Amino acid sequence: MAESTNMRLRLPLLCIILEVILIILFGALVEYNDDTHAKLWNANKSHSATRDDYENEFYYRYPSFQDVHVMIFVGFGFLMTFLQRYGFSSVGFNFLIAAFSLQWATLMQGFFHGMHHGKIHVGVTSMINADFCTGSVLISFGAVLGKTSPVQLLVMAIFEVTLFAVNEFILLSMLGANDAGGSMTIHTFGAYFGLMVTRVLYRPNLDKSKHRNSSVYHSDLFAMIGTIYLWMFWPSFNSAITNYGDPQHRTALNTYYSLAACTLATFAFSALVNPEGKLDMVHIQNAALAGGVAVGTAGEMMLTPFGSMIVGFLAGTISVLGYKYLTPVLESKLKIQDTCGIHNLHGMPGVLGAVVGAVTSALASPGVYGDGLQRVFADAETGKWNPQSRGGFQAISLAVTLGMALFGGLVTGFILKLPIYGAPPDTHCFEDGLYWEVKTFQYHFYTTPSQSPLLGQAYPHACLTLWEV
Amino acid sequence: MAESTNMRLRLPLLCIILEVILIILFGALVEYNDDTHAKLWNANKSHSATRDDYENEFYYRYPSFQDVHVMIFVGFGFLMTFLQRYGFSSVGFNFLIAAFSLQWATLMQGFFHGMHHGKIHVGVTSMINADFCTGSVLISFGAVLGKTSPVQLLVMAIFEVTLFAVNEFILLSMLGANDAGGSMTIHTFGAYFGLMVTRVLYRPNLDKSKHRNSSVYHSDLFAMIGTIYLWMFWPSFNSAITNYGDPQHRTALNTYYSLAACTLATFAFSALVNPEGKLDMVHIQNAALAGGVAVGTAGEMMLTPFGSMIVGFLAGTISVLGYKYLTPVLESKLKIQDTCGIHNLHGMPGVLGAVVGAVTSALASPGVYGDGLQRVFADAETGKWNPQSRGGFQAISLAVTLGMALFGGLVTGFILKLPIYGAPPDTHCFEDGLYWEVKTFQYHFYTTPSQSPLLGQAYPHACLTLWEV
Amino acid sequence: MAESTNMRLRLPLLCIILEVILIILFGALVEYNDDTHAKLWNANKSHSATRDDYENEFYYRYPSFQDVHVMIFVGFGFLMTFLQRYGFSSVGFNFLIAAFSLQWATLMQGFFHGMHHGKIHVGVTSMINADFCTGSVLISFGAVLGKTSPVQLLVMAIFEVTLFAVNEFILLSMLGANDAGGSMTIHTFGAYFGLMVTRVLYRPNLDKSKHRNSSVYHSDLFAMIGTIYLWMFWPSFNSAITNYGDPQHRTALNTYYSLAACTLATFAFSALVNPEGKLDMVHIQNAALAGGVAVGTAGEMMLTPFGSMIVGFLAGTISVLGYKYLTPVLESKLKIQDTCGIHNLHGMPGVLGAVVGAVTSALASPGVYGDGLQRVFADAETGKWNPQSRGGFQAISLAVTLGMALFGGLVTGFILKLPIYGAPPDTHCFEDGLYWEVKTFQYHFYTTPSQSPLLGQAYPHACLTLWEV
Repeated sequence: MAESTNMRLRLPLLCIILEVILIILFGALVEYNDDTHAKLWNANKSHSATRDDYENEFYYRYPSFQDVHVMIFVGFGFLMTFLQRYGFSSVGFNFLIAAFSLQWATLMQGFFHGMHHGKIHVGVTSMINADFCTGSVLISFGAVLGKTSPVQLLVMAIFEVTLFAVNEFILLSMLGANDAGGSMTIHTFGAYFGLMVTRVLYRPNLDKSKHRNSSVYHSDLFAMIGTIYLWMFWPSFNSAITNYGDPQHRTALNTYYSLAACTLATFAFSALVNPEGKLDMVHIQNAALAGGVAVGTAGEMMLTPFGSMIVGFLAGTISVLGYKYLTPVLESKLKIQDTCGIHNLHGMPGVLGAVVGAVTSALASPGVYGDGLQRVFADAETGKWNPQSRGGFQAISLAVTLGMALFGGLVTGFILKLPIYGAPPDTHCFEDGLYWEVKTFQYHFYTTPSQSPLLGQAYPHACLTLWEV
Repeated sequence: MAESTNMRLRLPLLCIILEVILIILFGALVEYNDDTHAKLWNANKSHSATRDDYENEFYYRYPSFQDVHVMIFVGFGFLMTFLQRYGFSSVGFNFLIAAFSLQWATLMQGFFHGMHHGKIHVGVTSMINADFCTGSVLISFGAVLGKTSPVQLLVMAIFEVTLFAVNEFILLSMLGANDAGGSMTIHTFGAYFGLMVTRVLYRPNLDKSKHRNSSVYHSDLFAMIGTIYLWMFWPSFNSAITNYGDPQHRTALNTYYSLAACTLATFAFSALVNPEGKLDMVHIQNAALAGGVAVGTAGEMMLTPFGSMIVGFLAGTISVLGYKYLTPVLESKLKIQDTCGIHNLHGMPGVLGAVVGAVTSALASPGVYGDGLQRVFADAETGKWNPQSRGGFQAISLAVTLGMALFGGLVTGFILKLPIYGAPPDTHCFEDGLYWEVKTFQYHFYTTPSQSPLLGQAYPHACLTLWEV
Repeated sequence: MAESTNMRLRLPLLCIILEVILIILFGALVEYNDDTHAKLWNANKSHSATRDDYENEFYYRYPSFQDVHVMIFVGFGFLMTFLQRYGFSSVGFNFLIAAFSLQWATLMQGFFHGMHHGKIHVGVTSMINADFCTGSVLISFGAVLGKTSPVQLLVMAIFEVTLFAVNEFILLSMLGANDAGGSMTIHTFGAYFGLMVTRVLYRPNLDKSKHRNSSVYHSDLFAMIGTIYLWMFWPSFNSAITNYGDPQHRTALNTYYSLAACTLATFAFSALVNPEGKLDMVHIQNAALAGGVAVGTAGEMMLTPFGSMIVGFLAGTISVLGYKYLTPVLESKLKIQDTCGIHNLHGMPGVLGAVVGAVTSALASPGVYGDGLQRVFADAETGKWNPQSRGGFQAISLAVTLGMALFGGLVTGFILKLPIYGAPPDTHCFEDGLYWEVKTFQYHFYTTPSQSPLLGQAYPHACLTLWEV
């Protein structure tokens, strides 16, 4: 090994330093907001009516928050357990970098668009936003899965969260973009950031670990836990921070239909691209979710169930085709080693979602939205409503996001290339044993045709996992 | 094999045609309802009060919807992963037919009882109802699990969803039945429909696949994920579409107690019917849920916790006894091959629930319900309240449901018998490898007493799953 | 075996007798409360306004209840599946004793602090409280995991639930303690009760089963399902029964930050205490949750995110150090065999939480809380507000809890020592096959260096699990 992968000093030092910095910054900058603060909440509400407490934003956001939280920790965490020998790292490192990122995101997002008299105000909405930003980091994690040390992942999270907050600020505050479900801010940004990082970290000899870069039967079932939770709760994700009332309700409904249509497209094309007509778990686990990504921008608009289903169907289709035909080309031609295929699940569907959002914005009119127009498009409230310009700004937002992601990923990639993080050697990628106590050992042996009466043919090399007793 | 099981053309063609039809019909018929439509919602609410948005039905139904959604996709999906070699299909086909059924159900249920000026109005309540209808299809799936191709399952779903909507219309709209948690409409209907389908599809040589028709250690744990989620969220299921306020609250409470009592009965009888007093995972995974099924009709009534616990205890008892003594008889005498034992989990407890509902209705009185009577029984609102006749109509509803289910299952079964769907041959039932890319192969060998020092006896045939490396 | 472990009569008899007693007591004592009763609810609400139904406590407590419910059944159940051969029992016995305990707790808690004119009133709040009490029993279950029969566990639950209710009554009603998230009532009580039980049940020859008292690769992944669900929903747990409005919102927020900081501490110290810097799944599965335990008392107070993070960081640190250095000493010196290490996850962090709660209470002032003071501290409502005395009463509450738990555990331990419950023999602890039908058998064989080309060294004894086909 070129470099020691021992984490004994590196990981504790980085974790403790980061957490101490976070605690100090929280102490200096973070305050309860009006709905969480004992004094402010009780001063604000009318004293006569005790039922005012029911109007605390907690009751209208927290169920959505918990669904998003499940997606971040169970959804992303288990989706990545599909690798046969990387389950601990998938769910464990997902846990670590998410726990860090949500704290760091609270500060960065608060700094860029939540300061009140020099303080960052926190409550359930900041919790949702921090989880959203964390989602972006976990998307990028999917690209480098199995090829990075936990120290590298934490360093990546530091930079990515920061740039996410900058990009989000440009889009939402400067360009006035709509992106409630984050087709651009979360998915496109996370995907292209991660793809650029993995490009810079390109390993020409990664095939030395290729026998571990695949799933086994049970690991695919664990991954399906992640998939199904992401799929079920995506309506909550896209609607979590829309305005109250019809926008939130409509977003959940649109996402529900988009995902349903996407699932049928996924099964259809997964069977179609296989010579024997067999379904591929990689497609089902991932492409079936693309419908949620692709209505992340337009979901709160009057996209209609009809429109949502068309978008979902397209998203599932391009995602499966991407896994089948594009991913191998990206690896061989562009040297992009994308472990989870995030380009197919978050990249292309994210861009599709941005385009759908721009078009749907450009078609919005008071005739369709009535008084609800200004509750979806903040521009309309100011009276300067111009749907074409809104569509244009949405398109600019996509371009900005792509630029920020690629540039950020490039810089971050080079920082992660420094030989100081204990990255795994090419021969030991996708292997939990490097960073985790694993009580298993492997027993290799050879089978011959005579030993294998069922299949009647020779398997040159089989691997059997045993446990010490 | 008599017939090719290659899905390359069949499955994509069917999925794409179905989804295109769905999209066209949604485009022509489906509209946002008042709570989801930007124009309608904002026109309806009073303009002065911004907090009216808090009264959108989204906030009072969506958490229940998400719990139901988890039951449909994780609950049913993982419950059926108990088979050793059928995990991909269990959770995957569950995913596919649920994603189709919820779209088709939206149209069928909307057509039969949700048309407004020629349009189907959708919102969170239609989402819950569509998931409910989907649940019925998944119950039937349990009977034919392992013996059907995905194409067959989709065709079954087309017919079952349609008939479900007709039966639901007869019960709820014509007979004015109470059935909030669906003891009749969902469980009884789904069970007897599925049992009739599997009867028509009877395979005399199914024992050729019997070595795969059982669980292994880890597959039973995956199945427990499904069980526990179904058990926990059943109070949400039964209460999801009751009236607001006390009925919803009471339904959740009754279901909670019924399930708790059912669980103790299940453990008791599972140990009692085993010669060595050992518990059987099949019972725990299934019978412990029967208490939720059995209060699906009466749960919203003043059943009392006391009554709920008695019903739950009975349901658990008959379910375990059904698994132990009735299922083998159904197979040997009536030629009903019921893979998951849906007759024990949904069939008998569903009928019990219908009977309990009829009796509880017949005993309802203004003295017990006060002004709440008309909020549970729609009849009472019209002033023509007659509890005995209500009980009678509940009993008629059960009879109608049984008739519709058996007739529908019969017709659907014969349609599914056509040799065009790529059904698995008798030798390859309960096997994922037929429809999925599976990267494992099996290695069969013989052990002798000398090789097995622990157990000291011969095992004629053992199977070991290996993975290529 | 000294004693038969056959459950055929013991378990059914106990389950049926207990359930019959529960049903009779529920019939005699339990009534719907004002929010669940058809007559009372509709009489109480104003007749003009239909939207009053939205104010039913169901809508403000039920989402929290469901999150708590998931923690009890999935969280605790799967957390304990880490043992290689004890997955059925972990999730199954967890299911059984939880289903019993929540019924018994409804009666006991109702008897001690919920009687209205001789009746126990039930609704969503009693459901949450019953689940909380159940949590305490499941904590104790963690100490004796693998060494007890289901009959023993049910008997333990009978006594523990009863004493829990007494202790809760003393703390909340007599001492006026704050303990919304149960650092004292749930975690400290459950932990020290369980530790004392396992001390009394000390097995000097437990090392005869030590080859089964460890995890394997997949069982650790199942356990992570439990961990992640506990972690995600802990904000709901701590806030489930606080007052509405800012206290509930703030509690969730504080818990969220405490857990995030705790997770970084856990990863840091897990790597630090390992000579090779490798992470230990035991730490990640357990210590990362200590942050939730440690803000169980102070979470509803104005602890600030800053304070919460410090507490969480400390909790994670002491928990990892406890697993590494204290648990072996407890076993060797004090003869406390604590299977899950509940002392590290619930014991020490619970005591820490109690101390933090006492200190935070003592520092509370109207200047910080404003009119919100009396909504956190009931004392303040009566006008006799004295923060120092409040802090003192909190400290007394901790002492009472420890006393009750140790005394109760001692008595219960001796009752459980009677040789009538079918406890497993020392040679068959941590083994599902004793109480469950398990269709696997084990094949032991010896490997030699030549057979193990990868590792090139002899493993004296390897174990391979096979399934009959």
